[in-house]
Amino acid sequence: MHLNYHRKYCGKIQAVIFDMTGTLVDFGVKANGQALQQLFSHCQIHLSPDILLAIADLPDLAQLTYLFNMEGFKSQWQQHHSSLPDEKQLEQLIMQFRTHQIEYASQQLSLPVDSKPVFQFIRKQGYKVGVCTHYCRDIASDLIPQLTEQGLKIDHWVSAVDVSQPRPAPHLALTCAVALDIMSVAACVKVDDSLKGIEEGLNAGMWTVGTAISGEYNNRSMSEWNQLSNTEKDKIRSEATLSLYRAGAHYVVDTVSDIQSCLEDIEARLKRGERP
Amino acid sequence: MHLNYHRKYCGKIQAVIFDMTGTLVDFGVKANGQALQQLFSHCQIHLSPDILLAIADLPDLAQLTYLFNMEGFKSQWQQHHSSLPDEKQLEQLIMQFRTHQIEYASQQLSLPVDSKPVFQFIRKQGYKVGVCTHYCRDIASDLIPQLTEQGLKIDHWVSAVDVSQPRPAPHLALTCAVALDIMSVAACVKVDDSLKGIEEGLNAGMWTVGTAISGEYNNRSMSEWNQLSNTEKDKIRSEATLSLYRAGAHYVVDTVSDIQSCLEDIEARLKRGERP
Amino acid sequence: MHLNYHRKYCGKIQAVIFDMTGTLVDFGVKANGQALQQLFSHCQIHLSPDILLAIADLPDLAQLTYLFNMEGFKSQWQQHHSSLPDEKQLEQLIMQFRTHQIEYASQQLSLPVDSKPVFQFIRKQGYKVGVCTHYCRDIASDLIPQLTEQGLKIDHWVSAVDVSQPRPAPHLALTCAVALDIMSVAACVKVDDSLKGIEEGLNAGMWTVGTAISGEYNNRSMSEWNQLSNTEKDKIRSEATLSLYRAGAHYVVDTVSDIQSCLEDIEARLKRGERP
Amino acid sequence: MHLNYHRKYCGKIQAVIFDMTGTLVDFGVKANGQALQQLFSHCQIHLSPDILLAIADLPDLAQLTYLFNMEGFKSQWQQHHSSLPDEKQLEQLIMQFRTHQIEYASQQLSLPVDSKPVFQFIRKQGYKVGVCTHYCRDIASDLIPQLTEQGLKIDHWVSAVDVSQPRPAPHLALTCAVALDIMSVAACVKVDDSLKGIEEGLNAGMWTVGTAISGEYNNRSMSEWNQLSNTEKDKIRSEATLSLYRAGAHYVVDTVSDIQSCLEDIEARLKRGERP
Amino acid sequence: MHLNYHRKYCGKIQAVIFDMTGTLVDFGVKANGQALQQLFSHCQIHLSPDILLAIADLPDLAQLTYLFNMEGFKSQWQQHHSSLPDEKQLEQLIMQFRTHQIEYASQQLSLPVDSKPVFQFIRKQGYKVGVCTHYCRDIASDLIPQLTEQGLKIDHWVSAVDVSQPRPAPHLALTCAVALDIMSVAACVKVDDSLKGIEEGLNAGMWTVGTAISGEYNNRSMSEWNQLSNTEKDKIRSEATLSLYRAGAHYVVDTVSDIQSCLEDIEARLKRGERP
Amino acid sequence: MHLNYHRKYCGKIQAVIFDMTGTLVDFGVKANGQALQQLFSHCQIHLSPDILLAIADLPDLAQLTYLFNMEGFKSQWQQHHSSLPDEKQLEQLIMQFRTHQIEYASQQLSLPVDSKPVFQFIRKQGYKVGVCTHYCRDIASDLIPQLTEQGLKIDHWVSAVDVSQPRPAPHLALTCAVALDIMSVAACVKVDDSLKGIEEGLNAGMWTVGTAISGEYNNRSMSEWNQLSNTEKDKIRSEATLSLYRAGAHYVVDTVSDIQSCLEDIEARLKRGERP
Repeated sequence: MHLNYHRKYCGKIQAVIFDMTGTLVDFGVKANGQALQQLFSHCQIHLSPDILLAIADLPDLAQLTYLFNMEGFKSQWQQHHSSLPDEKQLEQLIMQFRTHQIEYASQQLSLPVDSKPVFQFIRKQGYKVGVCTHYCRDIASDLIPQLTEQGLKIDHWVSAVDVSQPRPAPHLALTCAVALDIMSVAACVKVDDSLKGIEEGLNAGMWTVGTAISGEYNNRSMSEWNQLSNTEKDKIRSEATLSLYRAGAHYVVDTVSDIQSCLEDIEARLKRGERP
Repeated sequence: MHLNYHRKYCGKIQAVIFDMTGTLVDFGVKANGQALQQLFSHCQIHLSPDILLAIADLPDLAQLTYLFNMEGFKSQWQQHHSSLPDEKQLEQLIMQFRTHQIEYASQQLSLPVDSKPVFQFIRKQGYKVGVCTHYCRDIASDLIPQLTEQGLKIDHWVSAVDVSQPRPAPHLALTCAVALDIMSVAACVKVDDSLKGIEEGLNAGMWTVGTAISGEYNNRSMSEWNQLSNTEKDKIRSEATLSLYRAGAHYVVDTVSDIQSCLEDIEARLKRGERP
Repeated sequence: MHLNYHRKYCGKIQAVIFDMTGTLVDFGVKANGQALQQLFSHCQIHLSPDILLAIADLPDLAQLTYLFNMEGFKSQWQQHHSSLPDEKQLEQLIMQFRTHQIEYASQQLSLPVDSKPVFQFIRKQGYKVGVCTHYCRDIASDLIPQLTEQGLKIDHWVSAVDVSQPRPAPHLALTCAVALDIMSVAACVKVDDSLKGIEEGLNAGMWTVGTAISGEYNNRSMSEWNQLSNTEKDKIRSEATLSLYRAGAHYVVDTVSDIQSCLEDIEARLKRGERP
Repeated sequence: MHLNYHRKYCGKIQAVIFDMTGTLVDFGVKANGQALQQLFSHCQIHLSPDILLAIADLPDLAQLTYLFNMEGFKSQWQQHHSSLPDEKQLEQLIMQFRTHQIEYASQQLSLPVDSKPVFQFIRKQGYKVGVCTHYCRDIASDLIPQLTEQGLKIDHWVSAVDVSQPRPAPHLALTCAVALDIMSVAACVKVDDSLKGIEEGLNAGMWTVGTAISGEYNNRSMSEWNQLSNTEKDKIRSEATLSLYRAGAHYVVDTVSDIQSCLEDIEARLKRGERP
Repeated sequence: MHLNYHRKYCGKIQAVIFDMTGTLVDFGVKANGQALQQLFSHCQIHLSPDILLAIADLPDLAQLTYLFNMEGFKSQWQQHHSSLPDEKQLEQLIMQFRTHQIEYASQQLSLPVDSKPVFQFIRKQGYKVGVCTHYCRDIASDLIPQLTEQGLKIDHWVSAVDVSQPRPAPHLALTCAVALDIMSVAACVKVDDSLKGIEEGLNAGMWTVGTAISGEYNNRSMSEWNQLSNTEKDKIRSEATLSLYRAGAHYVVDTVSDIQSCLEDIEARLKRGERP
Repeated sequence: MHLNYHRKYCGKIQAVIFDMTGTLVDFGVKANGQALQQLFSHCQIHLSPDILLAIADLPDLAQLTYLFNMEGFKSQWQQHHSSLPDEKQLEQLIMQFRTHQIEYASQQLSLPVDSKPVFQFIRKQGYKVGVCTHYCRDIASDLIPQLTEQGLKIDHWVSAVDVSQPRPAPHLALTCAVALDIMSVAACVKVDDSLKGIEEGLNAGMWTVGTAISGEYNNRSMSEWNQLSNTEKDKIRSEATLSLYRAGAHYVVDTVSDIQSCLEDIEARLKRGERP
């Protein structure tokens, strides 16, 4: 008698994997730009939003190289310096750049004041916690302790420099899941503020939760956000929410402090035999 | 208006990931036992099936240590040797053991004579090919070229020593998929002769194809198999097939040479928006 | 990477669209027949149930024409009148007929005494309310205020004379939904006592709730119904309920006063991404 | 015995409802802008893409009013005219504007040379053909005969001015379907080049087919498109295709000439009891 | 790790179970009435359709008892007989009645001339054949050989007198399936002309095929049917078809000679893991 | 208009059908072996577990015949008896054997002390209760009253001797369901401790609940079980549970006293239109 068996994972969530920038730190995804401005403030250089956007996803060195290749930038720099930076000076600039990035990112943790109960819930449920970040390892390792202080005990983190393909490839999420020793990708939840991060989670066979207010869709610092009228907030929220749902996110919330109900719903759906 | 979007991968298969022992080489999963027998043949030691089974999944050194801790084995050895092997002699034994393993495994490729068309089909479709094995890296790297000769171009292989958790954890399959740069776990197919290997594939969110005749369920060499009556073959096939289906395998075939129709059916199902 | 996205409406119910006769007024769907009897009572004409059924769905003028074409009826009429009615007299007859229809229909609102809480629930939820009727516009506009008095605030109503196709075509329900400015047909609920009305709702892509006791399946006035034994009631209820379920109704209840739990269940199902 | 019956429409497609601009005419959705440029060419006014985008969806009069309220535009106009146009002159301008729109739109039918077989297929299958457009009735009725000449026999068309809500509300599609006397919304297919038009179809409970190359995503005239390299074409195609799939389109093709396989697949899915 | 396994029967059809009256014999379900007429023809008794319908489902003795309790019938009988029949005479009447039933039923096999290929197909596929009938065992055993002659090899048949509950209870179908030694109810197909027979099959967990033209919905002899115009045929067919679909039949065809495509489709659906 | 209707049973559970050995009596499925040991204890015969397993499913006479055909057994017997038993003596042995079976089975009811509430729940819900057993009718009828005493009111029981095919054929379960007059196989729940019994239920189209601790997987008496450490218990439980889930059981619990939540969940799923 020919029989077929459809296996379904019906256990608990095993791991929650967070994106870093926009999701846990750097509420408005503005730290990179602010750090650059600060780095060149002594030259009175103003970097336009267009330029900042164009280089945001490049590694640190590539960002600086890009700028020094721009005529306008170069001449501005040369008004304050005898020559373009040599290799050693570039290295120093990168060091300063990273210091500024950490400074700004940590000034703007994406964690609203009410996020501690969620982290307690995660610990109590026994979920492992992973973090995927496109920061280099230096910056990430400086920010991790600050998150620990906020109550988020991180079991493993992976940097984009550790893998060969950037998001939306599933490389970061899968590498993190293997390191966390999870037993099934369907037992993992990816939390991310960006379209590419949601896609990364889906490509990895995981559940996904998008954050609409902290992160790249809002692109405002927490204080800028707080000063908006409710009408403005609603407009931004509904557009960001729709974009993340359109990417395929299973759930969209405002910030990480709102994910507990999603995790509980995922538990209920796993128990019923549903899959991400 | 609150809308939800369910994303489905509808593209082509991107990678086929094969288990090695039982699936591609060592038709009857007997090489380990034969190599041990050969290793100690000068001592007239006979190793019972029970002992062979007990140590089959241990690393090489652990297998030898296990045997030298058995009273009967020890005394038998000491009839031909003045003392138990020291560390250096153990190392030499391991080297010989591996040589025998390779010899036996490659004598018994699991590939029926008609497997070349399947490998051509895979190449023609542009699927990447991965291999996961619990052999150590030395043995595996010796066997890979023999498979290449048979027409299977392997893009990447991973050994169990590279990951922290054995099957049925998804570690090997996921590590291999990341190295193959696949974009979605749902675009991968795991081919395996063992229950644990099928589970590994399912845990990794992949499609799975079990091989019932080559591999651990049959546990006969290809020539032993060929000498069976059709009735005996049918009994073995139906029991092995049922066991692999019960593990959740999406398809079960006799050997790797039969997987083309499965791959074509998976393509059709992916196109319809089905998931593994 | 080829991806497909299945969009699901997960918002709230936006509109509840009621049938009129049998659902909201004219509990036993007997008003038409009673009005005709009354119209010709001065001639001692008795109209058999067969004749009443045959003409029930015709427009008013067609009903009268039909009768005056019947030999028996004509001779009976001519015993009390010198001639058949001319055009003007026919118009007067129609006016009287409609007056009687309104009178009988409104004497027999289909609304049990406990229907007010349901209407309050609908208003509180912010659902828009539509009505579809096969009454001509004169009759309908006389009955609407009586329903408003009972607590049902109607945002829009459509008469069968406004559309080119009768039920089970979806014309009435869709025209009403457009007039109510709903955003998705899946956000609408059609409530109807008749098989054709349920099919109209399904054809329009809407949720459907059938009423088994008020309406054409029961075909008894409310007082006739109340005098039945429980056994008789159960038999009628179970047959009517089965017929409406067989038409594809998502829910079947006794009368409109029982629909709140259906609306709540539909809300829960919409939230889970289910469709009508 | 409590039974529930889930009704499924398993019949044929009954109607195909096309959007006009971008889908059937005005390949690059540029006619509006070109018409405005032409209208004011005697004043040497150049209208920036930003301004054209801002007013593209406004009614004709509103577009002109918008321009005459812009300081720069006003002064430019006044260099060639003694005063701003009075009501009567505005009316003349609108007449000219429409003439130009028709001229440009019809110069750029979205129909590739190979679209006739599709229209023959539609006629042969007996599908009714509807058109929804946001053109005013004057322009639309001028363009319809040109489409007829191309082989598309249109049974009914509706203009946005006929309904109270613009897309993505389902008003246009539903009004058209009722006028076409379809029996079930699930038997209708909406073909559209724009995100809002796909959503309109989904909100109406219909199947949807997006056109990625003709229409608002490409925003190039057919000759501009034909001059692109294959790499450029692929980039535009894949982005437009993804956007339309993300909106929830059931199928995305290049232009209307590619929809036959979609219609055949929908027929097969309807037969299997699937719904849009 | 908590896993759940959903088992699906994916094998072949194992048995086709046919209803007898209306499906295989007695095309118009008129044999019972004709036999009664014949039985009392010497008394010039005419039995109205209403009476025939009222007693159609009663056992033979009960039918006669019913008639002899009717005043009109009794007096008619007594015009030709000195007294009402005693027990022995009743037994003789029953014997004659059955003889007439067999005569009429077999004169009207429901099998169109083109049914032999279907029976060959069934035999070739190796499906077992069962028959469920509400005839008593005497009549059924007389009709079986006639069906065999037509090419239908019947492995087992069950009479309603063998079970405690009439259709729509699943008793007959399940008893037959057990006697046919089927391994799964999902591997059985019930073919029936009546609503209750379709429900019997569904209650038994089987696939169901309804016959709309032969059987109780048509209620015409084959020659009466053949004399109808195509319009009349279409009307009858579409009403009967809809009624059987509404009962939940998976397929509806005209007569048993049309079931091959249904059986092939069921095979395809079973292979895909679908269930009745 | 072609429509299809998918009928779903949404009513209540109608019957719960229990396996006997291992599920209701004979907690460790050891009674057969113990009875044989007792039967031959006067001969000092020890029967190995292998032999006991080999004959466990044979009818009583066949078990004894098997033993007397074994050389070792025969000689052991002949040391205490002058000859092998003749037919009459065999009959006496069988009688004694059955007496011992009853004695041991009833000493080891599988019912934990807390099973009465479940039986009360079943009665209160109005579920019919069936029992399927492979015991002969003599033994079963002796054990039934003991179960009644424990609160389980049994409406009907069937013995394997009543049907032509053993489990996993659905014969026992279907025969029992027909005798219980259930209306739909989907309204039945089979409770069983063995893989074959779960398959029997699935083949019969029923819901299935496996018992992992009482029954053949544990194969320990209740007191042996109670003496295990929690670690040992967990290992046995998780292996048995996985095996029963792999067979396709809808639910797996420890013993019958844990099935109430399963029954409640099945009720909820039936109400939602789900099927076994």
